[in-house]
Amino acid sequence: MLRGIFAPIPTSFTEDGDVDYRSLERNLNRWAQTDLTGVVVLGSNGEFVYLSEKEKVEMVRFVREHFPGDRPVIAGTGCESTRATVALTARAAEAGCDAALVLTPHYFKGAMNPGVLKRFFFDVADSAEIPVMLYNMPGNTGLNMTSALVIELSEHPNIVGIKDSGGNIVQISEIIAGTPDDFSVFAGSGSFLLPALTMGAVGGTLAVANIMADECAATLAASEAGDMEKAVALQRNLLKPNAAVTGRFGIPGLKAAMDMLGFSGGPPRRPMLPLPEESRRELRSVLADAGLDPRGH
Amino acid sequence: MLRGIFAPIPTSFTEDGDVDYRSLERNLNRWAQTDLTGVVVLGSNGEFVYLSEKEKVEMVRFVREHFPGDRPVIAGTGCESTRATVALTARAAEAGCDAALVLTPHYFKGAMNPGVLKRFFFDVADSAEIPVMLYNMPGNTGLNMTSALVIELSEHPNIVGIKDSGGNIVQISEIIAGTPDDFSVFAGSGSFLLPALTMGAVGGTLAVANIMADECAATLAASEAGDMEKAVALQRNLLKPNAAVTGRFGIPGLKAAMDMLGFSGGPPRRPMLPLPEESRRELRSVLADAGLDPRGH
Amino acid sequence: MLRGIFAPIPTSFTEDGDVDYRSLERNLNRWAQTDLTGVVVLGSNGEFVYLSEKEKVEMVRFVREHFPGDRPVIAGTGCESTRATVALTARAAEAGCDAALVLTPHYFKGAMNPGVLKRFFFDVADSAEIPVMLYNMPGNTGLNMTSALVIELSEHPNIVGIKDSGGNIVQISEIIAGTPDDFSVFAGSGSFLLPALTMGAVGGTLAVANIMADECAATLAASEAGDMEKAVALQRNLLKPNAAVTGRFGIPGLKAAMDMLGFSGGPPRRPMLPLPEESRRELRSVLADAGLDPRGH
Amino acid sequence: MLRGIFAPIPTSFTEDGDVDYRSLERNLNRWAQTDLTGVVVLGSNGEFVYLSEKEKVEMVRFVREHFPGDRPVIAGTGCESTRATVALTARAAEAGCDAALVLTPHYFKGAMNPGVLKRFFFDVADSAEIPVMLYNMPGNTGLNMTSALVIELSEHPNIVGIKDSGGNIVQISEIIAGTPDDFSVFAGSGSFLLPALTMGAVGGTLAVANIMADECAATLAASEAGDMEKAVALQRNLLKPNAAVTGRFGIPGLKAAMDMLGFSGGPPRRPMLPLPEESRRELRSVLADAGLDPRGH
Repeated sequence: MLRGIFAPIPTSFTEDGDVDYRSLERNLNRWAQTDLTGVVVLGSNGEFVYLSEKEKVEMVRFVREHFPGDRPVIAGTGCESTRATVALTARAAEAGCDAALVLTPHYFKGAMNPGVLKRFFFDVADSAEIPVMLYNMPGNTGLNMTSALVIELSEHPNIVGIKDSGGNIVQISEIIAGTPDDFSVFAGSGSFLLPALTMGAVGGTLAVANIMADECAATLAASEAGDMEKAVALQRNLLKPNAAVTGRFGIPGLKAAMDMLGFSGGPPRRPMLPLPEESRRELRSVLADAGLDPRGH
Repeated sequence: MLRGIFAPIPTSFTEDGDVDYRSLERNLNRWAQTDLTGVVVLGSNGEFVYLSEKEKVEMVRFVREHFPGDRPVIAGTGCESTRATVALTARAAEAGCDAALVLTPHYFKGAMNPGVLKRFFFDVADSAEIPVMLYNMPGNTGLNMTSALVIELSEHPNIVGIKDSGGNIVQISEIIAGTPDDFSVFAGSGSFLLPALTMGAVGGTLAVANIMADECAATLAASEAGDMEKAVALQRNLLKPNAAVTGRFGIPGLKAAMDMLGFSGGPPRRPMLPLPEESRRELRSVLADAGLDPRGH
Repeated sequence: MLRGIFAPIPTSFTEDGDVDYRSLERNLNRWAQTDLTGVVVLGSNGEFVYLSEKEKVEMVRFVREHFPGDRPVIAGTGCESTRATVALTARAAEAGCDAALVLTPHYFKGAMNPGVLKRFFFDVADSAEIPVMLYNMPGNTGLNMTSALVIELSEHPNIVGIKDSGGNIVQISEIIAGTPDDFSVFAGSGSFLLPALTMGAVGGTLAVANIMADECAATLAASEAGDMEKAVALQRNLLKPNAAVTGRFGIPGLKAAMDMLGFSGGPPRRPMLPLPEESRRELRSVLADAGLDPRGH
Repeated sequence: MLRGIFAPIPTSFTEDGDVDYRSLERNLNRWAQTDLTGVVVLGSNGEFVYLSEKEKVEMVRFVREHFPGDRPVIAGTGCESTRATVALTARAAEAGCDAALVLTPHYFKGAMNPGVLKRFFFDVADSAEIPVMLYNMPGNTGLNMTSALVIELSEHPNIVGIKDSGGNIVQISEIIAGTPDDFSVFAGSGSFLLPALTMGAVGGTLAVANIMADECAATLAASEAGDMEKAVALQRNLLKPNAAVTGRFGIPGLKAAMDMLGFSGGPPRRPMLPLPEESRRELRSVLADAGLDPRGH
């Protein structure tokens, strides 16, 4: 059963926009020294929509190869078409990934009714040689998977959990209440990690875990130990850094924070642009206020 | 400091659409026998937008008079104009209400920027002889008060709390983290009562508390006692009845549930229509599944 | 059959926030000298949600009394409850108004399904002694009346038209195509007057007609005469002033523009605030660019 | 200067989900016998998000090769990343396409501010050897390009027009009024073709043009000839078939309609599913009502 804190890692790029495997390897080595349970490659923070088909496969292989074998790697394999999703999931399985995180197809929003989505996820789960985790990301897709649909999908033996980034705690509560006990519900953002854990979530895939891995892991540990006072204090401390590296400054903010904290963040790929100087100052101040040490450039 | 579980009580109507004070009195007597901390008159569930100016004042007086004097009554006094809100708040104070719950004006959405809203709430709070509680209800108003605005408003000495019905647990967490310790944050729906309490909310104003007052109070008590297992079980049991008397079947559903459970629910005022028979069957089943005894008509 | 250009007139207020009937009378006299077909009292631009029950009735009477008897006055009579809408419509009929413009009730958005709305409008139209015009204003209400619903409502003998402010030209086209030939479709904003006329609309109720009455009337005349080149030129010239007195600067902008153009605009009622100085400068420039003469304060 | 009626052609698939070039060729031959000005390959109706990188290039080449050389072919080349968009645009130019239709990147909605979008479109237009047409499709992307942004982009010498599928006639009017006379504004849906033409649009890229090419061309011709009565009648007749092959039944509806009308529609690619039988009956009736002859299977 999937559980614990996962970092949806960014893809490193050179100034020219090529994938920068040396920086990525350095980052992986550092994440390996934290309390992270594992990592997600090709999540939204991995800028997967900016990667070519070939780069996606290379990324999956590289990350699995360069991250400790005893820690799980989850691969984001959702594409718009069923066939592309099936194919990429097969590549992730071959590479030794532990699970596939499958985003809802969404470009044709009007056509993605529950019946179509059910057929899509069942087709992918049927063919996959690794467990499938659903990925609900309405902020980017403009499409929400309802709790009723998720509960229906949880009946498939190879659909083992969900990362819900929508942040609707009622929906998360309904999913937990309606799915089997071994169906893993993950918070999709550090901003609502503890509320989700309280209602029965068993982990999180959190952008902020890239830079505050141990703090996220400690929040989970305190929650599991029933030390709510400590858990709440830790959760509150996550709020502002989490907002800074997600909604407020986005991936450019996450990468800038990584640079400040000794990782190799580097630039995002175009059309995304690096964080402007003024925002960097604000970001630095947020990180310092949260007890971090943003001395990097 | 305001804390505890409040029921936003419905306004009883006769079949002809007049206010039915006899039914209302019966209901108030029953609520007085529960563990409710207090009630809210003229909340959304009170169909306040369907009452005339005169009826609003009568309702406030009647409820304060017929509910135990040692239990607080909060009056919903938000109107679109500042002057009407100020006037109704003065009537509520005269009637002996303990606080005013003030909804965001919202018809001219485009004009209700943070500066205008700040001036509105400060004007109302300046003139009010009772404490003011903010009321954020984006589902009905189409307008959300951001955490930044609420934090700014909390600096006013006579603005003492907020009922947030939006259900955005991140926003609620940010408000709790950013406001003074004696600023009361209330969950605005039973569906996210426990997550809100976990993050530091001190109570709730919950439609479902009209029919499950003791269960809501027990959830709060378990949370305060640190018995999370019990609290989570109670919270989960609230989910479906809460959905049934809010989003799913609305006020017609709440009133039908009251009828089934021995209260005097009666019809909503037009244009709202009573719950259709098929929905009543579903509702009855939801209530029974939650351990209630829906034997009434 | 209702047709032509109507101005949804603002309610004049003194600096203290009382209704300013002297200013209103001056404005009515000026509008009477334009090519306006008639006026709408208690429309959105009339800040009707900020008026008391008593003020609404007074406004209806005053405007009908002080505007030329041979020109129609339409009264906005939509309230949230059926009974209040019926009562205000009766007052408008007594006052001699020519039609009632009835907004969709909308606070309980989730409950306002097509069946409920149909019953509401039929109840109002059944009881009304003057013709009823539907008022679709999704920007303020957060609720859109679909073309299917409007077509169904158009079957009632006393529902004679619609003012559609949504600006969805496809919906407007569908309504025109699906309703009887004597059902009057009015553009609800000057920004899409000509496209609506082209598809078969027969008039408009336009905020911008308060300050550019003759230009709006000329657009209608050119369209009816088939002089599309002239109509398009006139329509284009309406775009920026229209945006300035609606979405961009709102009612504060409309009132400021009236002050600049020799009307008595005055302040909006609180919580709305007068247009800030910087915006006034931009507004003045927009008006001048459109060929107006904004010399007033 | 780009002008006229273009069909955004579907990609034909076999039952197994492979690209079906024989069916596509048959369709291209039929479209070549209509009054279509040209076609768009890899538009939304081409299910471009379901095609592999290789298939996209093949499609562009095949369509250009098999459509009459004297009629323009526009290629949809928008991808999420700048580099992929630049590369595909280069392939389209090599294949002899006449222009590139470039969709807004949109997955990271929060990061796609006007500055980022401007840089993206300028980067693409700078490198492109064929003219660039902007593609605004908020219904699928969840992102709208404002008229202010489009006006700014129109200053680039190689950005020559826009296909606006949003249907906001005010925005379209503002764009036409604010851009140079040789900037081509195209309606993006047959439902608002005439209103857009009236305000100064010079063509359309219309799903419904796949099945009613001559009717669309006749609408444009009547509008250009100033025969508004005929234009309006033609436009009204487009409304229901257009709705059926776009919002109502989507691409499965368009393909089913093609099958009924003697084209080779075939199935959509998964996850989209063929139109269910009940919807096919409704569709057939819509087509017949519009004067078509849906005798095919």
